[in-house]
Amino acid sequence: SIDPARLLRRISTLGEIGRDAEGRLVRLAASDSEKLGRDQFVAWLEEAGLEVAVDHIGNIFGIWNGAGGEEKPIMIGSHIDTVINAGIYDGCYGVLAGLEVIQTLKDEGFEPSRPIVVAAFTNEEGVRYAPDMMGSLVYSGGLDVAAALKTLGTDGTLLGDELARIGYAGTHAPGFMTPHAYVELHIEQGPVLEREGLSVGAVENLQGISWQRVTIDGDANHAGTTPISMRRDAGYAAARVIAFLRDRAKSSNTPTVATVGCIAFEPNAINVIPSRATFTVDLRDPDEDRLKEEEAALAAFLELLSAEEKVGISAERLARFEPVKFDSAIVRLIEAAAGDRGLACRRMTSGAGHDAQMIARIAPSAMIFVPSRSGISHNPKEFTTDVDLIAGANILLDVVCGLATG
Amino acid sequence: SIDPARLLRRISTLGEIGRDAEGRLVRLAASDSEKLGRDQFVAWLEEAGLEVAVDHIGNIFGIWNGAGGEEKPIMIGSHIDTVINAGIYDGCYGVLAGLEVIQTLKDEGFEPSRPIVVAAFTNEEGVRYAPDMMGSLVYSGGLDVAAALKTLGTDGTLLGDELARIGYAGTHAPGFMTPHAYVELHIEQGPVLEREGLSVGAVENLQGISWQRVTIDGDANHAGTTPISMRRDAGYAAARVIAFLRDRAKSSNTPTVATVGCIAFEPNAINVIPSRATFTVDLRDPDEDRLKEEEAALAAFLELLSAEEKVGISAERLARFEPVKFDSAIVRLIEAAAGDRGLACRRMTSGAGHDAQMIARIAPSAMIFVPSRSGISHNPKEFTTDVDLIAGANILLDVVCGLATG
Ligand SMILES: NC(=O)NCCC(=O)O
Ligand SMILES: NC(=O)NCCC(=O)O
Repeated sequence: SIDPARLLRRISTLGEIGRDAEGRLVRLAASDSEKLGRDQFVAWLEEAGLEVAVDHIGNIFGIWNGAGGEEKPIMIGSHIDTVINAGIYDGCYGVLAGLEVIQTLKDEGFEPSRPIVVAAFTNEEGVRYAPDMMGSLVYSGGLDVAAALKTLGTDGTLLGDELARIGYAGTHAPGFMTPHAYVELHIEQGPVLEREGLSVGAVENLQGISWQRVTIDGDANHAGTTPISMRRDAGYAAARVIAFLRDRAKSSNTPTVATVGCIAFEPNAINVIPSRATFTVDLRDPDEDRLKEEEAALAAFLELLSAEEKVGISAERLARFEPVKFDSAIVRLIEAAAGDRGLACRRMTSGAGHDAQMIARIAPSAMIFVPSRSGISHNPKEFTTDVDLIAGANILLDVVCGLATG
Repeated sequence: SIDPARLLRRISTLGEIGRDAEGRLVRLAASDSEKLGRDQFVAWLEEAGLEVAVDHIGNIFGIWNGAGGEEKPIMIGSHIDTVINAGIYDGCYGVLAGLEVIQTLKDEGFEPSRPIVVAAFTNEEGVRYAPDMMGSLVYSGGLDVAAALKTLGTDGTLLGDELARIGYAGTHAPGFMTPHAYVELHIEQGPVLEREGLSVGAVENLQGISWQRVTIDGDANHAGTTPISMRRDAGYAAARVIAFLRDRAKSSNTPTVATVGCIAFEPNAINVIPSRATFTVDLRDPDEDRLKEEEAALAAFLELLSAEEKVGISAERLARFEPVKFDSAIVRLIEAAAGDRGLACRRMTSGAGHDAQMIARIAPSAMIFVPSRSGISHNPKEFTTDVDLIAGANILLDVVCGLATG
């Protein structure tokens, strides 16, 4: 079994790196604060005697060649970038548990049949640069690295410039190791395991994700003198879209979720009717056909609204990923490991996007979930008990052992 | 009659001061760019041989003592601060026409029975610091100057610090001259005069204004994993309020207008349900009872929504002004002047707030409107023809002559 104290200590340490003046954890991809997190992770990799490699998109790999020689590696991965005002577990838990598993196997003199690698992928969250899961998407060949490095951030920066600036524009070509298998351990970030009193989720699929940025153009005019009937109010039209998405998702019997997380009005002045409203739409569904239906329904509503309110509306795609089915053999390995350790487990769907969904394009992949208290994530209140964290890491250990002895 | 070329040239000149990198006119109260506008105005006052006085709240006065001696002055005023991405006429037209009228009378050897003063009041727009019409409100005793100087701006600055920084924290006590009468010339900023083919509006009243800032508190959570039924989405709740206000105003038969001009979400990330939404509400109605009803309807809706969506909602008052009735003798003077010059004129209500509504608390006041093309204001497309601008300034000349010979 893994060393619980070492794992928990590292989670706490990394969780303090990148706090802003208000104490919020903000370690956005390729930022100064994320550099500090990366430096700490690399220091731990070196301390564990692993070979460190960084690729062009800034993905960091800790490689244990062991007795494996030239074989394809088992890869364990996740990410250490965070959202704004994040919790400490999302991503970091999987990366640090991966390191913990390798260090445990190494210290115990385990002789793997192939290399074992822990990966921290760049920009999984997608908050500063869209799309999300960018590092693993590039690694698996789904996005050209040159294009990815030119991604414009919400703060006007280019990802490539920022990676170079923080010293993580690496020399390896993305995809330089093709995994034999990929496993990712993550907090659930949803309410299912806790509600059902289970310790482990064997994640067999992951829902589709559609991200768009919608821009509505109306006319700035005086708030006091412009009759309601003469307005082309971009802010009002945006409000209608937000309400439409939510009311539609709420009244349907499907698991579709729809979220508007970002918004801005122009000129954003109290007595000026907004001339422009810009906002993001995050639509998800485990079923590709239904996700397409939801996108079509939104497009139809935007068209209707544009005519009704005499506003210009355009939508730009920021990310689009189809639902993913994970490797059933690895899923069964996870279930078996849970059974062996006497932990209650169920198969489940991931609501969040994860690097595993990208690596699944090039290698058999699956995920292990542990419970999230009250299903809260992307929030400083995100919490998983030490018992669950340790249990999850041990399941990961068992699954990796199984894959590395096969 | 006034010198048309000089007036139009000054309007153009001032309209180029305070353009930002994108060419937008942004001369927010007590900002660096507004300082440049103030400096230009003061230079023109001095050029015209007027005595310049600045009071504690930064109001600028150009005083022509003439033959008037110790009598109470006729005051002509408006403002030179602007909204974000403004037109060039709002406020500036009235101030520069006031200067033009005094300069014309002075050059022609007119002997007024009392001093004539042109005033540029601080922070009429209220975009950076609420409430609007702040300089004239303080001048008329409606707001304590010390409190006003401590107003916190949208950019975190204090008005008092900014006035001192730009050199316009003056030495006179606000209210140091009590006007005998006050006249303000302004573009209509609405569609009425143009629609009716009229050149002049004799403004007999001004609608009530209610500004609030609403804050909604929900829970940040993951956009992909949080079922719709478990969300406390502050952004969705904000959208419901925006739609409520507009739909209510649209479906009523009253002239009530409601506008949400500013909004912000926290943490404002694409895959995070907003934990907080903050937005402004601008409600106006010429009838005080109806304005109160609208405020009560909003409050009731917020209460309902808070229960329905399980979000916290609080509303803070930023400005509240009752409807104002102007002085009927001055209104009649305006109508008579228009008649004498053969200009079509009607009595009307002001939809916008103006410094005249504050000075009306301490002196007989009224306003003159000229047409706004397509009713557009608070927008770079704001436009009034030279013919209308000149006609309005001549009406102002006649009215001031009438008041200064009485
Ligand atoms: N796991 C996780 O929070 N990923 C971020 C990408 C997303 O699902 O929005
Ligand atoms: N005239 C004008 O635009 N005043 C600004 C105050 C308001 O919002 O009415």
